[in-house]
Formats: sequence, C-alpha cells, structure tokens
Amino acid sequence: MKYSQLHTKTNKSGKDFESINATLLTKAGFIDQTMAGAYSFLPLGLRVLNKIEAIVRDEMDKIGVELVMSSLAPKSLWEITGRLETVDVLMKTVGANQASQLKSNNEYVLNSTQEELITPIAQRFNTSYKDFPFAFYQIQAKFRNEARAKSGLLRGREFRMKDLYSFHTSETDLKAYYEQAKVAYTRVFERLGLGADTVMALASGGDFTKDYSHEFQTRCETGEDILFAAHSANIVFNKEVAPSQAPRLTDTQEPREMEEVEGTGIIGVEALAEYLKIPVEKTTKTILFETAEGNVIAAAVRGGYDINEEKLKKVVGTTSLQLASAETVKRVTGAEVGYAGVLNLPSEVKVFFDESTQNRINFECGANRTNYHSINVNFGRDLPMPEQFYDFKTAKEGDAYPETGEVYEVFRAAEVGNIFPLNTKFTKAFGYTFTDEQGQEQPVYMGCYGIGTTRVMGVLVEKYHDERGIIWPSQVAPFAVHLVSLKGAEAAAQQTYDQLQAAGIEVLWDDRDVSPGVKFTDADLIGIPVRLVVSMKTGDKVEWKNRAETATELLEVSAAIARIQT
Amino acid sequence: MKYSQLHTKTNKSGKDFESINATLLTKAGFIDQTMAGAYSFLPLGLRVLNKIEAIVRDEMDKIGVELVMSSLAPKSLWEITGRLETVDVLMKTVGANQASQLKSNNEYVLNSTQEELITPIAQRFNTSYKDFPFAFYQIQAKFRNEARAKSGLLRGREFRMKDLYSFHTSETDLKAYYEQAKVAYTRVFERLGLGADTVMALASGGDFTKDYSHEFQTRCETGEDILFAAHSANIVFNKEVAPSQAPRLTDTQEPREMEEVEGTGIIGVEALAEYLKIPVEKTTKTILFETAEGNVIAAAVRGGYDINEEKLKKVVGTTSLQLASAETVKRVTGAEVGYAGVLNLPSEVKVFFDESTQNRINFECGANRTNYHSINVNFGRDLPMPEQFYDFKTAKEGDAYPETGEVYEVFRAAEVGNIFPLNTKFTKAFGYTFTDEQGQEQPVYMGCYGIGTTRVMGVLVEKYHDERGIIWPSQVAPFAVHLVSLKGAEAAAQQTYDQLQAAGIEVLWDDRDVSPGVKFTDADLIGIPVRLVVSMKTGDKVEWKNRAETATELLEVSAAIARIQT
Repeated sequence: MKYSQLHTKTNKSGKDFESINATLLTKAGFIDQTMAGAYSFLPLGLRVLNKIEAIVRDEMDKIGVELVMSSLAPKSLWEITGRLETVDVLMKTVGANQASQLKSNNEYVLNSTQEELITPIAQRFNTSYKDFPFAFYQIQAKFRNEARAKSGLLRGREFRMKDLYSFHTSETDLKAYYEQAKVAYTRVFERLGLGADTVMALASGGDFTKDYSHEFQTRCETGEDILFAAHSANIVFNKEVAPSQAPRLTDTQEPREMEEVEGTGIIGVEALAEYLKIPVEKTTKTILFETAEGNVIAAAVRGGYDINEEKLKKVVGTTSLQLASAETVKRVTGAEVGYAGVLNLPSEVKVFFDESTQNRINFECGANRTNYHSINVNFGRDLPMPEQFYDFKTAKEGDAYPETGEVYEVFRAAEVGNIFPLNTKFTKAFGYTFTDEQGQEQPVYMGCYGIGTTRVMGVLVEKYHDERGIIWPSQVAPFAVHLVSLKGAEAAAQQTYDQLQAAGIEVLWDDRDVSPGVKFTDADLIGIPVRLVVSMKTGDKVEWKNRAETATELLEVSAAIARIQT
Repeated sequence: MKYSQLHTKTNKSGKDFESINATLLTKAGFIDQTMAGAYSFLPLGLRVLNKIEAIVRDEMDKIGVELVMSSLAPKSLWEITGRLETVDVLMKTVGANQASQLKSNNEYVLNSTQEELITPIAQRFNTSYKDFPFAFYQIQAKFRNEARAKSGLLRGREFRMKDLYSFHTSETDLKAYYEQAKVAYTRVFERLGLGADTVMALASGGDFTKDYSHEFQTRCETGEDILFAAHSANIVFNKEVAPSQAPRLTDTQEPREMEEVEGTGIIGVEALAEYLKIPVEKTTKTILFETAEGNVIAAAVRGGYDINEEKLKKVVGTTSLQLASAETVKRVTGAEVGYAGVLNLPSEVKVFFDESTQNRINFECGANRTNYHSINVNFGRDLPMPEQFYDFKTAKEGDAYPETGEVYEVFRAAEVGNIFPLNTKFTKAFGYTFTDEQGQEQPVYMGCYGIGTTRVMGVLVEKYHDERGIIWPSQVAPFAVHLVSLKGAEAAAQQTYDQLQAAGIEVLWDDRDVSPGVKFTDADLIGIPVRLVVSMKTGDKVEWKNRAETATELLEVSAAIARIQT
C-alpha cells in the first residue's frame, strides 16, 4: 500500500495524552480519539487490530466455536441475574431526543459482558449430557460506563474483547477445560509477542467460587495492576488477593508499664508514631466491622498496613462486611471512632489479629476512650496471647509469601486476559440444567474467558517503543516492510514495491514528495519492523534496517525478500 | 466441521416469526433473537455473514480504505450538525443503575450512522487539494431506536452495515466517484447472488441535494419499499419520489349547473362519491398548507390520490410545509376543516392543481362552507382554467411515467444498499475546507454509501427459500457441502470428510446418530447448496443432490470434489 493512499498521517507535534500508548498510536496515525475511552481505528490501526484478533481467533477455534451476540439486550435478561442493579459500569440506551423517545420509549442494556445472552443460547440447544462440554466465543465491542478513561487503549468506555464461555456437566470437567484454556491463552500471548513478559496471576474469584480466578498480566510500568511474585514457588498473585507475611520484627526491648496517653486530634499512624516517639510498626490499627450475620468484630493490623476486606471476609467466614457505624463503635468501645483498640472489648466482639501484629513488645493500640491511646501493651500480660494470628492485610512491598518465606517481587502489570470459573452462578439464575445418563436433572457448570484485543494493542505499544516511536513485533505489525523511496529513485522504488508485493510481502511504500528526514522519522514513529530504502545511492540494491537497531545493510532485493520470508 | 460441534441445532417446530427470514434463520439455527430487532449470529449464521462481508470488503477495497470508528460519540459532535435533536432513531447511553450513574453521569450518543465521526477524521488529515479525492469505509454495528422491528434482519434496532464516505474537491468530482460507487455496488450485489433481482432506484436526496439519492433494491414480495419502474426508459423510482401521471379520464358528459350540496358528517372521498353518486375520480381533495415563508397555499388532487409533501415542497419552492391549523382554515375558507375547496379562495391563497385534476367535467370540490360540497364544477366556467398543472401526488398503481406515458410496473422490494450525495451538508457544519492550487479555501464535497450486511442476509433468505427451507447461493453458503452419513457408513463418511477437507472444501458433516429422515429434513432446512450422502448403499461412492433440485446422482468422491471445485 502506498502511504499516500492511507489518507491518514503522522502528526509528530500532536497532543500528548496521559498514556504512552494513546500518544504514540495517535501521533503515528493508528487511532483517533473520539472521546476519552473511545477510539476509532484508522487504516493502520485496523490492520494491527485485525492481526491481533486473527491470532486470538486461531487459538480460540481450537477450544470453541465462534458466534457473535447482539450488543443490545432487554433489561429483563439482566434482571434474571440481578446484575441490572449491581454492575456499576453497566449502560443502557434511551432515545437521544424527543422525537426518538416518542418513537419508542424502550430502554435496552448495552452489554458490558455477555453471560446474560450466552447462557440462554447455550441452554436452548444443549440439555443432554451428550451435548457437553462445549464452548462459544465471540470478538466484539463492549461498553463500560467508566468514570475515568485516561489510559488510552488500556481502559475503554468502548473496547473490543474476545469473550469465550464454556459449559460443563461437572466442576471437574470445568476444571479440566480451564486448564486447556490456560494453555490456549499462553499460546495466544506467546504468538502476540508478549509471552516472555506475561504471567498468570491468581486473582479474586468474586462471588462465584472459593477458588481464584486467573489473570494474564503483562509486566508493564504503566499497568494498572500490582503483582506479587514468589519465584521459587512459581506463583504470582494480584495484590488484591496476595497472601502476605509482614517483615518480622526483632524487638529486644524490655516490657514497660502499660499506660494511656492523650493524643487529641492526631490522625493517621504516621503522625501518631511521631507523636508517641515509637516506630510505626508498634502502632496498631483496629477496625470494627458488622458482618452479614449482624455480629460486630474487630480486626487489628500493625501500623502501615491496610485491611483487605476480601481476605478478612474469608477469615471471619462471612459473605459481607460493613464498617461499623459510629453508634456501634460508641456502644462497644465507649469511644468515638478513631480510638478503638483491642483491650477490654465486650465479649460479644470477636477480635481477629493479623499476623503482622505478632512479635511486638510494648505496642500501641487505641484505648477505647476518646482521644486516648494505650502504649506499652503486651500480649500475655495486658491481654491474652491470641490463639491464632491470621492474614487479612493488603500485601505490600517487602512482604513475603507465607508458604516459603520468600520476599515477593512486586511489579506493575497490565491485564491482557482473564479466566474465571463461574461455576453455577449464571446457569442457576437461568434454571439451566442438563439431563444426565440416569435421566436426572443436574446443574450446568460454566466458565468465562476474556482477552481485550484493543487493550492488547495498547499494551504492545507500552512494551514495545523507544523515544522515536513504536516498535511492532512482526506478527502484529501493520506491514512487514516500510519502503522509503528517495528523490530520483522513484522507478527503482516502484520496481522494488512490485517485487515485494509479488512475493506476498505486505509493504507500506512512503511515496510522498517530502524530505528523507521526514520519511525516516515517520518510519521510526510508525514502527514497522523492517525499513528498506531505495535511493540514487542504493543502485539496484536496497538498504535494510531493522526498526529496533541502528545498523544498515545494503542487500539485493531478492536477498531482502528471502530474509523477510524466513 | 461436524454438526455435533456446532452446539446449535435446527428446531423445525420452533416459533414462527412475522417474517420469513427470521422464521427460517431461527429454525435452521443461524440466528437467535435477543429481542425484536436484535439478533445473535450463531456459528452457522456468522459464517454466512462473514462471507457476505468478505465480498463487500473485497469490492470496497477497490474504491476506499477500511477503518473502524467508535460506536459511542460525545453529544457535542452531533450538536455540531444539529442532528442530535432531529434524527428520530438516535439513541444515547446513560448509566443503567444508580451505582453506574454515580460513577459517571455522562451521556453518549450510540451512533446510527457516522458522518459526525468521519468528517472530523477526514478533516484532520486531508486539507490540501493534493489529498483528494479519497474514501474511508467500515463494517460495523449500527443502532436505531425503531418503534417496530418485525421484519427480522430487514429492520434492526441493531444491525451491521458497511458505510463508506467519500470526499472531493468539487461536485463534479463527487459525481464521478458516485458513478464508480454505483459500479462497485452493482458488482457486490451480483457477487452476492442478488444481481438479477436488484435494481437501482431513484430516491429522495433529503435536505442535502436537489438531486436524487440512489437505492439498490432487491425485488422481494416482503420488502418494505414500493418501486415504480418505467422499463422503456430504464428508470426506477421509489414511491416516495416517483413522478406520476394519473390515468387520463375520458369524460364526455355535458356540463351541468354547479350547485352546493349538503354532506354533513361524510368523511373520506369514497363515502362522498357514493353519497353524491359520482365516481371517486370526480371528487377533489383540497388541502391547505402553511409554507416556511408563512404563506397559505392550497393543493388539490383528484379523489383517490394523496399529496406527496416532498414533491409539493419542490413545486411550491419552499423548504417546509405544515398542514394549516384549524384557525387558518377557518380564516381563509370560512369553514371548518374538511370543506376546503378551490372556489372563491381569498387571493392571498395560491392554489396548486395536480395534473390528476385536469380533463374532468362536472367535478366536486369542497364548498368552503361547513358541511357543504360544490358539485358540477368546471374549469373555465366556475373558476379559471389553471395556467399550469403540477405533479405533487403520491404515485399509485396504474399511474404512468410522465416522460414516456408508459404505465409503471409497480412492485415491492427490499433496500439492500443506498448511495447519497451529501454535498457540503456535513463538511460545512464542521468547517471542513481544503486549500486549492491557488491557496484559496474551498468547500469539501462528500458522499455516503451504505450496505446493510445483516439485512442482505435477510433478503437472501426472503429470495432463496422454498417450503422446505433455505437455499443459499453458493458464494454465501455457510458450507459448500452438507455431508450426511447414514448408519453403518461411519468409516466411509469419515474418509469422504477427510478427502473433502484435504481438497479445501468447506463441509458440514451431519455425524449425529439420528434417522435419515431427520438428517435430510435438516439439510433442506439449512440450505447448503450440495448434499452428499454416504450410506451402506453408496459403497465407495457418494450420492450427490443439489439443494434446489430433486434428482440425485451417484458419483466417485473425486468426481464430486472436481465438480465442487469448478
């Protein structure tokens, strides 16, 4: 293709976006921002997106059958699962003006994900054990009512996604398929050029399962997720679920006498530690919660940590936790909010200690008295040594993986895929059962598996760029060759262009009448893997340069073609 | 592919929809209705859709460059063109629940067409005369807030469309490209198997142009459009714009004395004609309008015709017409609504006569007196012979093409594509100009060109089916061969399947353990062009049957393959 036929252009001096991917893809002419979180894919961008999706499709065809669902759905489908009210990114459509509203006042859901559509479709056609297992997938635009969308293609209000849904006669069969999906996903990211930097991280299973879900995360400084890797155990956790062991304190102080100290108006453990002239690690954060069952519990972590409510819920064994109201705090502690401690709580309040609170001598905690803190508190003297310490804090840098004691490597990453054992969450809502070999109705198990294809494009740019522009991996590059013709070599360039095309090589020929400098700078910005220059100097040869390297080389056209084809 | 791997099934006894295409496509397992006007494309359906879109894409690549725009747009873009308030099928998105609305209370337009997006994109990159002409196209879901959507894939709230937009430095250049687009469209419909039944009809140019737009219409009894064809002139009009010449009346009555007759409570020309004992053709419908300029005009057609306001606007030379209010009618006629006539109107009211009102002796018209009609009215006696007769009636069956006097063939058709000279409507709104060779700013001209790809799929089914099911044209069939294996011939079927696949032939193998009758009926319903049966009887041969025919033939597998490949 000739550059002049693209009818889009680079714009090196264009606007800088907050994200690298949006900035480079826009300046290089791959995408055009319609609004924050919604982009048009220009001819160059569509070529990359098509290549990404072709790879995804090729691997998904091995484990599922492709279809495409509608983007609109009646609200009734989303009412069946209760998600019409709970999915906080869900959008619906209404008439945009009075004439349209008069025409029809119906409201439709604009799907953010499609369990509500695929479950009844699967159910309509597959109800005998003989029909199982099976999986459907699609590649399609999805819509989310994001509050902020400043990460370019990494977080969209509209984005393209491959979503696969599998259906099974048992949890065992779901798990077996789930392993197959992991393999397929691993292959996808390898083929996309992200294999070396993409890990599978354990993440929350949500309400659907006690198990983890799995995220495919690509190491990326600009990613939105923080991962904790324990390399010796070959395990990676999303921060939201990472088990953690706080750095052990080696405290050799003598126990001192416990006392209550006034600390009016001191907010935060840092300020408190400074005020009390003790290390932050000796402060204790005690938070009161009310459980789904109506009980009040106290949870204590050492200063510097936050409580991870998801982890705490599992420790407590409840389905929901709410911060205790000011009245409840007052009732059980006798103090205003901010002064709760682990001493002398009424017996109705069960106290849970995070493991970070152990091994401390002369620690601080709230005095359960407004404006007062207890200091020089010690287990086994001022309160009984807890029978058990738990792990319900949010992991942080420096923490270790409890199973091995290895200090985690902590790094940022961008999620490029996730797989999720939904179990019977959606099939139960739709009453989807199958008839087993004995003629009995049995519940259907389900899994879902996503890859954001536009997001992958953004992550590729975040990973593969330098100060001059994008450096596409060859398998997703918009073209294999960027042919640059310099003044006076038009005929030779035309011949080279024809030869490359005849050899089936995708080539972008910069046929413009602009300076060599502009052409070279644009070639670097666009990032096609191989640049070939034809000029008066190159004669009947071409100058080869890899985008990622600086060396150039003079080659016969046939040699260049042969090298591209290997 | 094996039928058992589709995981969708035929359902011969399933629900009947109002449209043939929805009924057959659903029963055969190609589509699944999410709600009226929104469908999922199941594996079989997606294969057909992909083939249709591949043909469209192949032809569009010859006249444009592909990209894909966002489906969401900020309202501000639609405000620039004023269409946010005027497009009566436009939808917008809002948060679907309280949590989502709290997250973001932004509203976005869900595009029904994309002039508002492509114009600024084109403008961003192409502003010199050297950049022109060019065209961008995309294939993408579109959304329309339809009140009713009962024609299956022929009218969707969500549907897929190829939309192409071209940009030019002059109206002449636009027109030249427009002719190229006609050629490309003609090729598309030929390749889709609709060539013989698809005509190009003239339709309204809307506000954009005095010229017509062009619709590609496929003859189809269930189509929503009515076309008027004048074959000798090789011209076809959409009913909405068809010029018309009413059948000439040959009236040899002697003029009678004009009189006023009471006709209290008689509504409609049929009832009136019966009451007055005159033919309907002798009644006159006189309607009063107020023009954009504030004038009141009267328009008269003979009984049995309706006034076509679009045609009348051109005759009157105004941009809008509104039915005159009851007060205005009272003021100018002195009577209530329903008794306006062409006699004795105040001179401020210009009267326009449709050509259908000529050549009548002793005709009727309203008496401009409540409850009264004038009868035995005659031009040249009771009122002057009009200086000019116009054509502003809605054409109807029996009318002739005025240029040749040929009586139209009138038939129903389904629109499969349209092309539209937008001229400067959108470019002006966005201030899109280009710099000409003299350095002057000049307006950019624009055209748009649509093909509804899902609608094409529906039209194909409306055209190509019989009482047993669908009969796909081979170029869009989901598979080339439907292989049916009967009991005992599994090994031979596997071998045939392998041979067909090795030859690169797309084959659906019905590998189910069901009766031959079920398999044959399903094959007819699904409509793949060639059915091959392998049974104990066929030995090492296969039984060939074309879907559209009844004859069968025993062939060597190699001969069958050779025949498919020719």
